[in-house]
Amino acid sequence: MADQAQRIQLDFNNVLRVGGEHGLTEAELDAATAQAGQAIAAVQQRRQGGDLRWMELPYADTSAVEQLAGEIRDQFDNFVVLGIGGSALGNIAVNTALNGPFYNSDNQRTHPRLFVLDNSDPEFNAGLLQVIDPARTAFNVITKSGSTGETLSSFLFFRDVVQRAVGGDKLKDHFILTTDPAKGPLRDLVNREGFRSLPVPEGVGGRFSVLSPVGLLSAAVTGIDIKQLLAGAAFADEITREADAWQNPAAMGALVQYLLYGKGVDIVVMMPYAQRLKDVADWFAQLWAESLGKKVDRTGAVVNVGPTPVKALGATDQHSQVQLYAEGPFNKLVNFLRVERFATEGALPAAYENMDAFSYLAGHSFAELINAEHEATAIALTEAGKPNMTHILPEVNAFTVGQLLYLLEVQTAIAGELFNIDAFDQPGVEAGKVATYALLGRQGYEQQRQQIEQAQGQRNPRATV
Amino acid sequence: MADQAQRIQLDFNNVLRVGGEHGLTEAELDAATAQAGQAIAAVQQRRQGGDLRWMELPYADTSAVEQLAGEIRDQFDNFVVLGIGGSALGNIAVNTALNGPFYNSDNQRTHPRLFVLDNSDPEFNAGLLQVIDPARTAFNVITKSGSTGETLSSFLFFRDVVQRAVGGDKLKDHFILTTDPAKGPLRDLVNREGFRSLPVPEGVGGRFSVLSPVGLLSAAVTGIDIKQLLAGAAFADEITREADAWQNPAAMGALVQYLLYGKGVDIVVMMPYAQRLKDVADWFAQLWAESLGKKVDRTGAVVNVGPTPVKALGATDQHSQVQLYAEGPFNKLVNFLRVERFATEGALPAAYENMDAFSYLAGHSFAELINAEHEATAIALTEAGKPNMTHILPEVNAFTVGQLLYLLEVQTAIAGELFNIDAFDQPGVEAGKVATYALLGRQGYEQQRQQIEQAQGQRNPRATV
Repeated sequence: MADQAQRIQLDFNNVLRVGGEHGLTEAELDAATAQAGQAIAAVQQRRQGGDLRWMELPYADTSAVEQLAGEIRDQFDNFVVLGIGGSALGNIAVNTALNGPFYNSDNQRTHPRLFVLDNSDPEFNAGLLQVIDPARTAFNVITKSGSTGETLSSFLFFRDVVQRAVGGDKLKDHFILTTDPAKGPLRDLVNREGFRSLPVPEGVGGRFSVLSPVGLLSAAVTGIDIKQLLAGAAFADEITREADAWQNPAAMGALVQYLLYGKGVDIVVMMPYAQRLKDVADWFAQLWAESLGKKVDRTGAVVNVGPTPVKALGATDQHSQVQLYAEGPFNKLVNFLRVERFATEGALPAAYENMDAFSYLAGHSFAELINAEHEATAIALTEAGKPNMTHILPEVNAFTVGQLLYLLEVQTAIAGELFNIDAFDQPGVEAGKVATYALLGRQGYEQQRQQIEQAQGQRNPRATV
Repeated sequence: MADQAQRIQLDFNNVLRVGGEHGLTEAELDAATAQAGQAIAAVQQRRQGGDLRWMELPYADTSAVEQLAGEIRDQFDNFVVLGIGGSALGNIAVNTALNGPFYNSDNQRTHPRLFVLDNSDPEFNAGLLQVIDPARTAFNVITKSGSTGETLSSFLFFRDVVQRAVGGDKLKDHFILTTDPAKGPLRDLVNREGFRSLPVPEGVGGRFSVLSPVGLLSAAVTGIDIKQLLAGAAFADEITREADAWQNPAAMGALVQYLLYGKGVDIVVMMPYAQRLKDVADWFAQLWAESLGKKVDRTGAVVNVGPTPVKALGATDQHSQVQLYAEGPFNKLVNFLRVERFATEGALPAAYENMDAFSYLAGHSFAELINAEHEATAIALTEAGKPNMTHILPEVNAFTVGQLLYLLEVQTAIAGELFNIDAFDQPGVEAGKVATYALLGRQGYEQQRQQIEQAQGQRNPRATV
């Protein structure tokens, strides 16, 4: 039962303390327990029907990933992920959490540096060339469809750079293509040109892919124990199958947020009190926003629903956002992440003890300070009538991080059932994609281009200042 | 009139295109122009009365900052800011914007690396020791009050590190204390122990301090032209004095957001389409949240008001957040930042031109792509009935960045007038501070500690899962 000591707990006392107006009462939660139970069951049923294949990722064979990671570690100094959205955010979140915020600069690092290039910004892409030697760099091109424009642009750019550095015959040693196992342009290239490749498993969408090869390769290359990551996820799978929402942190997390949404609490602030978990908030923001932000529900009714995730970081944002959270509108649930044991305590040496501003700090540590600040902020928000809850991680390690990611994924799936929307599509990004193709003059989009030019022509001269 | 070519424009056509239900009509804006004019006048009057001293920062003498920066550049390889909130965010925003996202890793960098330690996280603070040689590092301890617990903790920690590395007699060469010019614990230390020091000018609050020594020293140390930064701010000062809101981008930005707030559009997403401007969104989030998020208005009435700022990044977050923005609730204004000319275009080399997924990209550049994506997203959101507006920067340079920061500060001051709240205080962070002191056992907070322990004792065992 070593796992139990590594179990993440969800503490929602402060949602109840705030009470029924802006928080929830125990009775409200009890009344909704059956609904939550149905949502849990619906998710597990879909899974058993062969749907929701991301739920099986904790049990996948990782040997292909580990072997490829070993080759990359042996051959290269830098590992660059070319991907965007779900192909990038999981890589960043896991790396910051488990390698720490200074990984690339660390003088004692023994594994390749990791860069995640997740934007079509010219200076961002070109800027990397000041930092890496292309001849000593491997690139993982990640796009499930194999056709994501931003990612293929970066591929074209760095492909040319590498070709000029090492010559065309060695080009393909520097690129791994991570894409659909059977179809799409990148899969065609793998088949035709012999690039190394990993699959984005069928039925696994981008934002649910962190525990697939999409997220695992960069983790393994940088020395993270991906078996432990998956073991933590498997543990979360066990916990989140529990039929009673009062025993199931994913279901309770979903239920609290669903019920609060009905009371106008339509923003969730994910606020880790740990620098290492900063980018988990970013990863969660995609998961929550893209899964639950939907125009129509599953009956086809127009609902324009979706809680808005906000990323914050404790203690830092106490000096930036907490003023608004404490005194502003009653439209936020703050979801803290707290770490019980840090890898180092950071004892504060004594000095200037004759001064009040310093003397109370002596004998404490950064670990005590940041956890006191979490507790203090939770208390202050509760007193101000602002509901808040805390996921408590015993420590930050591969097991707890895998557990947290999977737990939040299941929470999202259950929330999708409660909101009665499809949590696994993203129809709202299509219009922007089409408009981009039209603006770039892609064949077949001539009519859209004409429409855009017409609409954009009708500008109000007063509306630019 | 070279400045006019560097003028930032605010394009709010898409707020009008969305129309009156979820956006605004021209008539609504016309009807509110007089109110905006009063707000502009009120800000300038307060300024003339000696209040709002941050408005005079563009005209301050920078020679002390420049001289100190030169000394630091000569003596050290690393420059570390110890500060939090307003003492950190401006430093980060300016550095990312003007030195780029890879500054610290750049092999061709000729100035000290910059680290901003803005959290009381034990691993974050201790982790820096794997990266820097303390004997080759200068620290800028920034806290206006001189008593910010997080910052003094980091000071204690690195003070001890440096002392052990170079000995007590050389200690003070490694620390600059940036604090109130006359009072507070850090000012006392300067006077008593002879640390080098810069002032946080009187009457300048943290979130309005980026153009003071707080933000300027790290900029100058890393080679940024701070005179140009201030020249851009002075140019924004000129523009934002304009009495007619239709000619004043700060006033129009404030007015649009104030009027939309009244229609339930209570979230503003700051979404730069440029990697360099990513952290400007973070800086703005503090400015907007802490200034406008208030419990009481200036008549003392309880209003619990405040728009919620959300940070996003284009094109990246098209694959993360835009699904929600397009299809979710009508509660968001998206405020894009767009860059007309990038320092490098990033031409996309042709390859695989027989494949549809690649062929349309050839002949384009990253600069074209990211700007097409901005335009496409703006079109798609407008079609979905979601208001959006764009600040257009001719390019990203010290002049435009200084201009943008000052423009957004004035926008905030004008918005404070429109919301009729005090935009320059932050009473809502006090409760958390007191609770932290109590939890750490600071003298004088014994009663609060008892209260906390009592309240925390009353836990519902069902509320942890």
